Amino acid sequence: MSDLPKSVSINEEGPREGFQIEKGPITTDRKVELIDALSETGLKQIQIVSFVSAQAVPGMADAEEVVQRFKPKDGIRYKALWLNDRGLERALQAKPLHVTGAVSLTASETFLKRNQRRTLAENLAAQHKTMEMFKGNNVPVERGSIMAAFGCNFEGDIPISTVLMQVQQILDVAAEHSLTIKELNLADTMAWATPLSIKRVVGAVREKHPQLRINLHLHDTRGMGVANAYAGLEMGVDSFDACVAGLGGCPFAAHASAAGNVCTEDLVFMCQEMGIETGIDLDRMIEVAKLAEDIVGHDLPGAVMKGGSLTALRAKLH
Amino acid sequence: MSDLPKSVSINEEGPREGFQIEKGPITTDRKVELIDALSETGLKQIQIVSFVSAQAVPGMADAEEVVQRFKPKDGIRYKALWLNDRGLERALQAKPLHVTGAVSLTASETFLKRNQRRTLAENLAAQHKTMEMFKGNNVPVERGSIMAAFGCNFEGDIPISTVLMQVQQILDVAAEHSLTIKELNLADTMAWATPLSIKRVVGAVREKHPQLRINLHLHDTRGMGVANAYAGLEMGVDSFDACVAGLGGCPFAAHASAAGNVCTEDLVFMCQEMGIETGIDLDRMIEVAKLAEDIVGHDLPGAVMKGGSLTALRAKLH
Repeated sequence: MSDLPKSVSINEEGPREGFQIEKGPITTDRKVELIDALSETGLKQIQIVSFVSAQAVPGMADAEEVVQRFKPKDGIRYKALWLNDRGLERALQAKPLHVTGAVSLTASETFLKRNQRRTLAENLAAQHKTMEMFKGNNVPVERGSIMAAFGCNFEGDIPISTVLMQVQQILDVAAEHSLTIKELNLADTMAWATPLSIKRVVGAVREKHPQLRINLHLHDTRGMGVANAYAGLEMGVDSFDACVAGLGGCPFAAHASAAGNVCTEDLVFMCQEMGIETGIDLDRMIEVAKLAEDIVGHDLPGAVMKGGSLTALRAKLH
Repeated sequence: MSDLPKSVSINEEGPREGFQIEKGPITTDRKVELIDALSETGLKQIQIVSFVSAQAVPGMADAEEVVQRFKPKDGIRYKALWLNDRGLERALQAKPLHVTGAVSLTASETFLKRNQRRTLAENLAAQHKTMEMFKGNNVPVERGSIMAAFGCNFEGDIPISTVLMQVQQILDVAAEHSLTIKELNLADTMAWATPLSIKRVVGAVREKHPQLRINLHLHDTRGMGVANAYAGLEMGVDSFDACVAGLGGCPFAAHASAAGNVCTEDLVFMCQEMGIETGIDLDRMIEVAKLAEDIVGHDLPGAVMKGGSLTALRAKLH
């Protein structure tokens, strides 16, 4: 009937996506509380902070303190996001983190110009410098990433040929530095994807590069997050980014919903009910989602945290 | 890649689902305003009221007045819901309505006992009386419907064999009254379905009864609504119930989200972006969704009404 994987990796990004955008202020204590609670759910990877300018992102000013104070648990990769050399330095100094590099491209030149003031060509050239920086710091690089791979609010639809070209560029950059890319992240940064475009883009990439493990980073701004994840699963994709309770939603919108990442516990629910192993305790994740709502102080868009898991319901019935 | 239909019918149920559950009170004027606005979106079917006890459902006490005052538009079927003879009588007296009957079963006996105080056998027997009632009133019957077809909060998982048995019972009841069933509604009343179970149940029904057009009534309580609709589309399902803005959400929940039907404009967005014709003007539907929020006086769960349509965005870019 379909090509559903037997198990999937779900990479939690709620603390980083959430604390970075929430007007808060959220105390370091409560950030640590959320991270420590996530560590008890069965997750294997949690992105906990970003090392960015405290002026631009006040919610991340205490990133070092968060890293010092959370309780790392064996078997979990705790990750950080950074955008430049200074950020990477900070990440390398913050000891319990799992620091890995990536060749990072963006499929929309307009978006790239607005956000990083670079053309596609300039960004490609910059990747070589970044690879040197990773090498100089002994940071392993096995990942490529393409932002805005499904469409862009400033440029419109992204042709599949552009994505395929960028995948090749990622592999070429890596090869020049004797690196081997094993995983490719396709990010629907501005929520242009539909299940059909997920299938088309993933299918085209997989056909040319069957050796690459594909990860999907799906935003839920237009309500397609879970459906797009399902389309990915049907294509055999077995790695997804997600945010507990749907953290990351834009606090400026009238409604807390919709702008964040696909919701972790909703994705876990779907996988679990379809017999796909996630390693995550759904009922525990639902408790953490409620904790997240308590911490940010407003409703979050997750559905299963309100609708309830069926495991809990079945247990009551039997 | 898949069996997506070229076009789909979307049956709007927002006025009925919404006004029935909202604590309101919502004036008759505003109910009429929403219905009239929906009539301008390209919808071909709108369920506008239910004829039920005003004591049990105060929000529907003005059903007759709503029916008298809205502006019926040519080419749109305006429908009502009713639960007994008295309700049917009221529907028949309310002139501009499109009154059709159905053989209506429920896959969960526990749910049936709680809601209608009937066993499966008693409910089946009652259908014969109902068919006589339809015949006596010249009400056409071409539809069968199965509630709780994917699972039940009070009984648990529903085996596919139960659904198949009930489809056969629907056809048998109809045959005894010389009626021909053309459409089968499968309702995920308590939001137990996943994309995989949608595919399994629809696939099993279609294999045995390829002549039946299948309609899906999907609740979004666990965030699976759009993904389940996509799974239906992949099985060739071309008829869906939906509610503008996701109306019908439980007003008792802390968050307005999640308990209602799959959201009309989110479903239209997905179809449109995948090249499936709906006949609906998405940008106009988004305006109606905002009107619905204004009328109920609180946030509603629809995503595209906040994230915006891509047609509008593309037009701006070019």
